[in-house]
Amino acid sequence: MKFFINEVDQIVNEAIDGLLTNPDLAKLDSFPAIRVVIRKDWDKSKVAVISGGGSGHEPAHAGFVGKGMLTAAVCGDIFASPSVDAVLSAILAATGPKGCLLIIKNYTGDRLNFGLAAEQARALGHEVRTVTVDDDVALGPDVKKRGVAGTLFVHKVAGQLAEEGKSLDEIADIAQQVIDRTASIGLSLTECRHLGQQTISRLNDEQVELGLGIHGEPGIKVIAYDKADQLMAIAVDTLAASLPETNNRYALLFNNMGSVSPVEMSVLVNAFRKTSLGDKVDYMIGPAALMSSINMSGFSVSLLQLNEVIEKALLAPATPAAWQLQAFKKPASIAAPSLPATLPFEPSDNSRVQEIITSTGSLLVAIEKEINDLDAKVGDGDAGSTFALTGKRLLSNISQLPLNDTGKLLQTIGRILAREAGGSSGVLLSILFTAAGNTYASQPDLGAALLAGLQKVKDYGGAQAGDRTMIDALQPAFEALAAGESISTAAQQARKGADDTKHIIHTKFGRSSYLSEEVLKNIPDPGAEVIARVFEKIAGLKSVTH
Amino acid sequence: MKFFINEVDQIVNEAIDGLLTNPDLAKLDSFPAIRVVIRKDWDKSKVAVISGGGSGHEPAHAGFVGKGMLTAAVCGDIFASPSVDAVLSAILAATGPKGCLLIIKNYTGDRLNFGLAAEQARALGHEVRTVTVDDDVALGPDVKKRGVAGTLFVHKVAGQLAEEGKSLDEIADIAQQVIDRTASIGLSLTECRHLGQQTISRLNDEQVELGLGIHGEPGIKVIAYDKADQLMAIAVDTLAASLPETNNRYALLFNNMGSVSPVEMSVLVNAFRKTSLGDKVDYMIGPAALMSSINMSGFSVSLLQLNEVIEKALLAPATPAAWQLQAFKKPASIAAPSLPATLPFEPSDNSRVQEIITSTGSLLVAIEKEINDLDAKVGDGDAGSTFALTGKRLLSNISQLPLNDTGKLLQTIGRILAREAGGSSGVLLSILFTAAGNTYASQPDLGAALLAGLQKVKDYGGAQAGDRTMIDALQPAFEALAAGESISTAAQQARKGADDTKHIIHTKFGRSSYLSEEVLKNIPDPGAEVIARVFEKIAGLKSVTH
Repeated sequence: MKFFINEVDQIVNEAIDGLLTNPDLAKLDSFPAIRVVIRKDWDKSKVAVISGGGSGHEPAHAGFVGKGMLTAAVCGDIFASPSVDAVLSAILAATGPKGCLLIIKNYTGDRLNFGLAAEQARALGHEVRTVTVDDDVALGPDVKKRGVAGTLFVHKVAGQLAEEGKSLDEIADIAQQVIDRTASIGLSLTECRHLGQQTISRLNDEQVELGLGIHGEPGIKVIAYDKADQLMAIAVDTLAASLPETNNRYALLFNNMGSVSPVEMSVLVNAFRKTSLGDKVDYMIGPAALMSSINMSGFSVSLLQLNEVIEKALLAPATPAAWQLQAFKKPASIAAPSLPATLPFEPSDNSRVQEIITSTGSLLVAIEKEINDLDAKVGDGDAGSTFALTGKRLLSNISQLPLNDTGKLLQTIGRILAREAGGSSGVLLSILFTAAGNTYASQPDLGAALLAGLQKVKDYGGAQAGDRTMIDALQPAFEALAAGESISTAAQQARKGADDTKHIIHTKFGRSSYLSEEVLKNIPDPGAEVIARVFEKIAGLKSVTH
Repeated sequence: MKFFINEVDQIVNEAIDGLLTNPDLAKLDSFPAIRVVIRKDWDKSKVAVISGGGSGHEPAHAGFVGKGMLTAAVCGDIFASPSVDAVLSAILAATGPKGCLLIIKNYTGDRLNFGLAAEQARALGHEVRTVTVDDDVALGPDVKKRGVAGTLFVHKVAGQLAEEGKSLDEIADIAQQVIDRTASIGLSLTECRHLGQQTISRLNDEQVELGLGIHGEPGIKVIAYDKADQLMAIAVDTLAASLPETNNRYALLFNNMGSVSPVEMSVLVNAFRKTSLGDKVDYMIGPAALMSSINMSGFSVSLLQLNEVIEKALLAPATPAAWQLQAFKKPASIAAPSLPATLPFEPSDNSRVQEIITSTGSLLVAIEKEINDLDAKVGDGDAGSTFALTGKRLLSNISQLPLNDTGKLLQTIGRILAREAGGSSGVLLSILFTAAGNTYASQPDLGAALLAGLQKVKDYGGAQAGDRTMIDALQPAFEALAAGESISTAAQQARKGADDTKHIIHTKFGRSSYLSEEVLKNIPDPGAEVIARVFEKIAGLKSVTH
């Protein structure tokens, strides 16, 4: 198992130093024997709000130190409570005359070490109150509940009240209200894997765990793996059973346990939205890793029943970047713009242009197999079909084309190719005609317009002349037209350009860039060959040359 | 392989709907045929900034739609460019008289589809400029560079300038400057696994990939797995080689490719900080999933060389929660508070108290093996050693104790136990004595003080009388003392309480909660037994009873 770590016993220390690149934070200089992260600007003029516990739950708890949340966080080893001395150091470093609130997650180690530190701080004359968070509803009524991700609601509300200068007693009382109104449930596809250790999974590919803790302990139930909507419905049923039946409004904390991909987290948010609880939520924190369990591929959802005081404290801004709250609503739509008609212009007649398009379209259909065979030698064998499709579309739409307006005709061909031609070459030809039409509208010179279109093909496609693409035939032909040469001359230039591609055996672009010299030798680029054929066809038309 | 998904072909649609629980955002109602996420408050009065591309890179791109960043994002299928019609819809929905900037990642599909949409929008009379991001430095000088996570710098700077009302030309020019000054490199322990598909890894446990793209394509090099610091040094060397040698300042974008755990990301940030580039960085965005590759266990680092205009735009606030910038500094320390001396009080003499402590300490040492043997039957066999250690510490410190001040003596014993006793029972006894001493200081009634201490033990430890712990002996003894009964009566009560634990065969707390009735029957709780012995010892002392 590979992880991004150095020495296993340095993971917690190094992770804290990584966090401390944030200059709003500092560590006590008894680090690393004692691991306390504290607001650097803290002046003890308000109630200190302190939490902490084992590490492995990042960003909790140190990531929530900052104005409006925690004053300090005490970090133990991975999944192990910090020592009494560490907690006491945090209390002594942060606590002024207004006192200190300790927010403890309900685990024996945390209760004892934080509790004893509180008693010792009191013996030293500090005012200390403690609250213990027990938001996990997985374990049922007769087992003492664990403290999990809902703890962050307590950090936020207590931190905000402290920031506002409230008294310790008021903050502790409201913190307890938050605890009483918070419920959490977790569900995971995998266990967490301890960093630097090989782990054997207790779950197979058909099993997931419901009601998990955050220390790798087994979930309360192993249930069958299912679609995200079904799994979420099971988690929500468990959660809903613990909520009062009154018509309450909630804040939702959507926690990634460590390694769920962002796109899956969004799918899960959408799954939650569709449940019975989805309509009762006004705000969401996350989805994000908030109280992780190292790298568990699981999530937890925590609900806090709102009241006026709690809602106000929850919505106030706080500096920790890990805390992000948004309003939570149904997805909204706005009217999409009408896409332009493929054929927006009045048809018009021009027999010469009609002949050019008819004969070109017929040519493209006729040479489909020949060009596919050529492409099979140097590409993926479908170039003929792509051009043939273009030909068919031109033929079938010819009666609706503005044949007598060159600029609009070029634009219209661009649109037909954009909607109906396949593959990169279809998009590239569409770019060519669309840009040429746009240019022609302001500067009615066909050769110059086509060259301007070709420049866009180079810009967007990335290939240049000499890269063994249809550009090698298009460019000399367009340059001839722009120089006022005849269509016959242009056709000769296209032919020469196409033939020259037989000798281009190094290229970084297009269909041939993965092929060896031996394969490419003496085979023309199929796109360039088609272009040469088209020019030769047009040059051979009596209506054009006479 | 388990994932949080429903139907594979609905992943992108559902993830977008999950994102759209954010009421600042809306989708065009041509969804899901066309997937455009747009600012709901957009009034077309400023330049529209539009980006997008394949999905699977969440939160990019739709997660960066919001005031100060993108006006709209166009979402393709997983790793597939959106269609021309989708891009055109976004342009038409967002673009007003000041025009539109398209920010394109340098992949052929994106270049062609965004490019053609731009041409079509121009044909409809809209002012559209495009920039193409090519920040990946993995591929070396002779291969066209890919657009990866550095693209987000362009979103932020262009979005801010648009918000400020700048012109399209100015925004596009500065966006191009950002592109020219941005370099990115990625490194991954694993490939991404496509959701809903089984994947066979091309990497073994000793291999990682350097210079990876964001679409699952192989990295430029397979290198040996190593410690985080070494892997980061290799990535940074590649990045540094692409930077100008002048003494520049940079912003760092620290990207989680999808499934790196939060604690590992912090270790990686610390690893980066220690490299040659660590001192050149003034700001960091992340660490977070910003431009993910579904669930790749990898990271990328992108550097943007700052100038005054870029820095100002970068630092301006933006509403997308996925964009979080912090200043980037060396970890700072502040002075840790002095922890209280274990023995802060003047020693004082009291022969009766001295005899109690000496005989109690000697007793605890003497019964070590007996109690360990008892504990081995119902616990982990170390209860005797824990109490013996307490006894030894009392004996060795007795000359320094404030024997003639009950309150200070209780506090001092609490401190000795906190620092030097092991296990939960040491912490619990420390809580008992510390809290009793605190209480005694204000209310000098030993029995009441001890009961107050016991209440803290219950509060923090979670056990009550009847839960088969030392509380079962402590509580009746303390209650006797508090009622003014003699030490002999208290000892009798402690003995009765300890003996009664032989019949407690159901419990949820402490060492015996995992044991069967058969095992527990007729065995007293070892902690309660020790307490009874201590009281009996004290009650037998002539100095106490006479």
